[in-house]
Amino acid sequence: MTGLKLDRRDGVLTITLSRPERLNAVDGALTEEMLDVLHELMRDTATRVVVLTGEGRGFCSGMDLQGGDQSGDPGGGRDGGRVQRLHRGIARAGEVTARLREIPQPVIAALHGPVAGLGVSWALACDLRVADPTTRFVVPFVDLGLSGGDCGLSWLLPRLVGPARAAEILYRAQRLEVTRADALGLITEITEEGADLDGAHALAGELLAKSPYGLRRTKELLNLSLDAPGLRQQLAAETGVQALAFFSEDLAEGMTAAREKRPPRFRDR
Amino acid sequence: MTGLKLDRRDGVLTITLSRPERLNAVDGALTEEMLDVLHELMRDTATRVVVLTGEGRGFCSGMDLQGGDQSGDPGGGRDGGRVQRLHRGIARAGEVTARLREIPQPVIAALHGPVAGLGVSWALACDLRVADPTTRFVVPFVDLGLSGGDCGLSWLLPRLVGPARAAEILYRAQRLEVTRADALGLITEITEEGADLDGAHALAGELLAKSPYGLRRTKELLNLSLDAPGLRQQLAAETGVQALAFFSEDLAEGMTAAREKRPPRFRDR
Amino acid sequence: MTGLKLDRRDGVLTITLSRPERLNAVDGALTEEMLDVLHELMRDTATRVVVLTGEGRGFCSGMDLQGGDQSGDPGGGRDGGRVQRLHRGIARAGEVTARLREIPQPVIAALHGPVAGLGVSWALACDLRVADPTTRFVVPFVDLGLSGGDCGLSWLLPRLVGPARAAEILYRAQRLEVTRADALGLITEITEEGADLDGAHALAGELLAKSPYGLRRTKELLNLSLDAPGLRQQLAAETGVQALAFFSEDLAEGMTAAREKRPPRFRDR
Repeated sequence: MTGLKLDRRDGVLTITLSRPERLNAVDGALTEEMLDVLHELMRDTATRVVVLTGEGRGFCSGMDLQGGDQSGDPGGGRDGGRVQRLHRGIARAGEVTARLREIPQPVIAALHGPVAGLGVSWALACDLRVADPTTRFVVPFVDLGLSGGDCGLSWLLPRLVGPARAAEILYRAQRLEVTRADALGLITEITEEGADLDGAHALAGELLAKSPYGLRRTKELLNLSLDAPGLRQQLAAETGVQALAFFSEDLAEGMTAAREKRPPRFRDR
Repeated sequence: MTGLKLDRRDGVLTITLSRPERLNAVDGALTEEMLDVLHELMRDTATRVVVLTGEGRGFCSGMDLQGGDQSGDPGGGRDGGRVQRLHRGIARAGEVTARLREIPQPVIAALHGPVAGLGVSWALACDLRVADPTTRFVVPFVDLGLSGGDCGLSWLLPRLVGPARAAEILYRAQRLEVTRADALGLITEITEEGADLDGAHALAGELLAKSPYGLRRTKELLNLSLDAPGLRQQLAAETGVQALAFFSEDLAEGMTAAREKRPPRFRDR
Repeated sequence: MTGLKLDRRDGVLTITLSRPERLNAVDGALTEEMLDVLHELMRDTATRVVVLTGEGRGFCSGMDLQGGDQSGDPGGGRDGGRVQRLHRGIARAGEVTARLREIPQPVIAALHGPVAGLGVSWALACDLRVADPTTRFVVPFVDLGLSGGDCGLSWLLPRLVGPARAAEILYRAQRLEVTRADALGLITEITEEGADLDGAHALAGELLAKSPYGLRRTKELLNLSLDAPGLRQQLAAETGVQALAFFSEDLAEGMTAAREKRPPRFRDR
């Protein structure tokens, strides 16, 4: 690992974007490391919650565009021609967006300072966002000559803030301070300055007390829901998932704990 | 009818969940009664508006999980093995969610006290919600070992409050007091304490003065819209429906009334 | 042109609905003129931003229903029987809704006074809305005997304000003053009274400074996003579009300008 730091503790994996000298700009190597970590998480039943944060003074400054020519290239490695490198660099960074949603663990973004470009897509692909007051979302695409449709942003943003606000933000390249982001529903919790990672870990601790099966299936079903052709397809998915829970020991524990008015002790079985 | 009370008056059918000794917990018998009532409403042209409420100190405490073993079973009757009963109990309760949306009459939920579990799905499947200040939405699924995807909830909630708020509410098993529910757009009107049913009937009276064809088609098209593959499919559906209205007597009456600045007297013809 | 006025200036096309004696009611001739203008805009690379407004005391009073009989007919010309004229009048007006979204230029609605019926569909089909304090959205369909699903309204409104608010507004034929419309996220900017067109032109000027390729592709991708079957389809569309930008001169200019902390001078090449 060169661009990521990983910290596993008590069922929580904290992934830190760690290129602070570049404000955690994402190059091709970092993208591939992220995809490796996300691949492992697909089958990692010991990790219950993931926290994603950035080292230093901001979360992420976006894709690293310092390439061999004036306009810069996204970090797609050295193989192939420029067409191939560009397509790979962007597609693989967008693949991270998709896999953050597909892993079974809830992902909490811990945000501070600039959350820019690709960083916005990754932050919005997380399930929950804890932000300190220095957090600002920056989407300068149309000021640079790029499209605001970047690594999933044109899919995530209208679903999170509605199509009218998404158009306004992307067309005007608006910078969203944390208060406006919160009013738009993008923020789960605002912390004291510098306390975003602590806040994210506290929220992760809260989620660790929940049913692991329940949390994983809720995330899965909420994501399926956005693409479901209709309510009945979703009902069919929900019904099988919910009926299965009745054969778990954890449901018996949860029901007993509720009757006894004590916290449940789930064991993921 | 054992678990439901029905009251028909002047074009309004009021359905009351009526197992107050169990805080209107829904068992298999109540679910089947609801499906019978909804089946009749599909062809009932005399009923223009439906009100759904609960008897006693709350709207609904969710699915009745007092079964034969420790974890409880949803109320799926006695036939078949446990797999079959569980699947049937959950699937049939979810079918109520779907049919509340499919009946042509607008449905107004009159809410007070706890609206829990399955009760949330049914309340959110209604078109409009009138709530008194004691109303609270409770989604304890992941505290019990269950999935937050329950009887349509993972389809309805992200569409009503956005995917980020839906994740927050379901992952954290958050209890929504009426003020937060209102801020999230879930409530049509807040009444004085104990006046939710009166408020729902007043709103039903307002809707009774509207064009029955217009209301039925608006509900149908809004529901189709959520699953429409694109705008043009929706335009095609809208165009036929709207053109047909021009052959009705009620449109002539509505246009005349508007010119004469008097309330229209629609006759559903 | 009889019902529209067109003004081209510095990359901005201002389209004015111009039947002030009828509060800009839309008849079949005006609809066809709009479709002609929108057809040209599909291939008009000199026009970067479109502004849509109404002459006189309001934006638009809706479809012109003064026909040969008591109930009025939408403006579908004189050919064919009544079935054919009605279907054509409504379908063609809805086609304007679809094409306002499909043209590559961002469209800004400049709103004042009544925005009624079909006018609401056209205003909501625009990307951004600048409104003065006299603006009010009026959707009297169910008071007239018509369906609230009209010319795209049942597709646009639930996507912009959520399905619960859409039902409330259409079932109750609610009139939305500008402050409520703004709280619902429908308004980009509120201006002084009478300054909506100036405000729209100022916003157009702001957009003229952005990358034309970036703006056009952002609009296209946001619209595709609403109908995308899933995130991965959207990622594939985004990736090709974004990679292509790296071969444009404008991206090099945008990156240089950002480094030099000066405004970019984009040339759409």
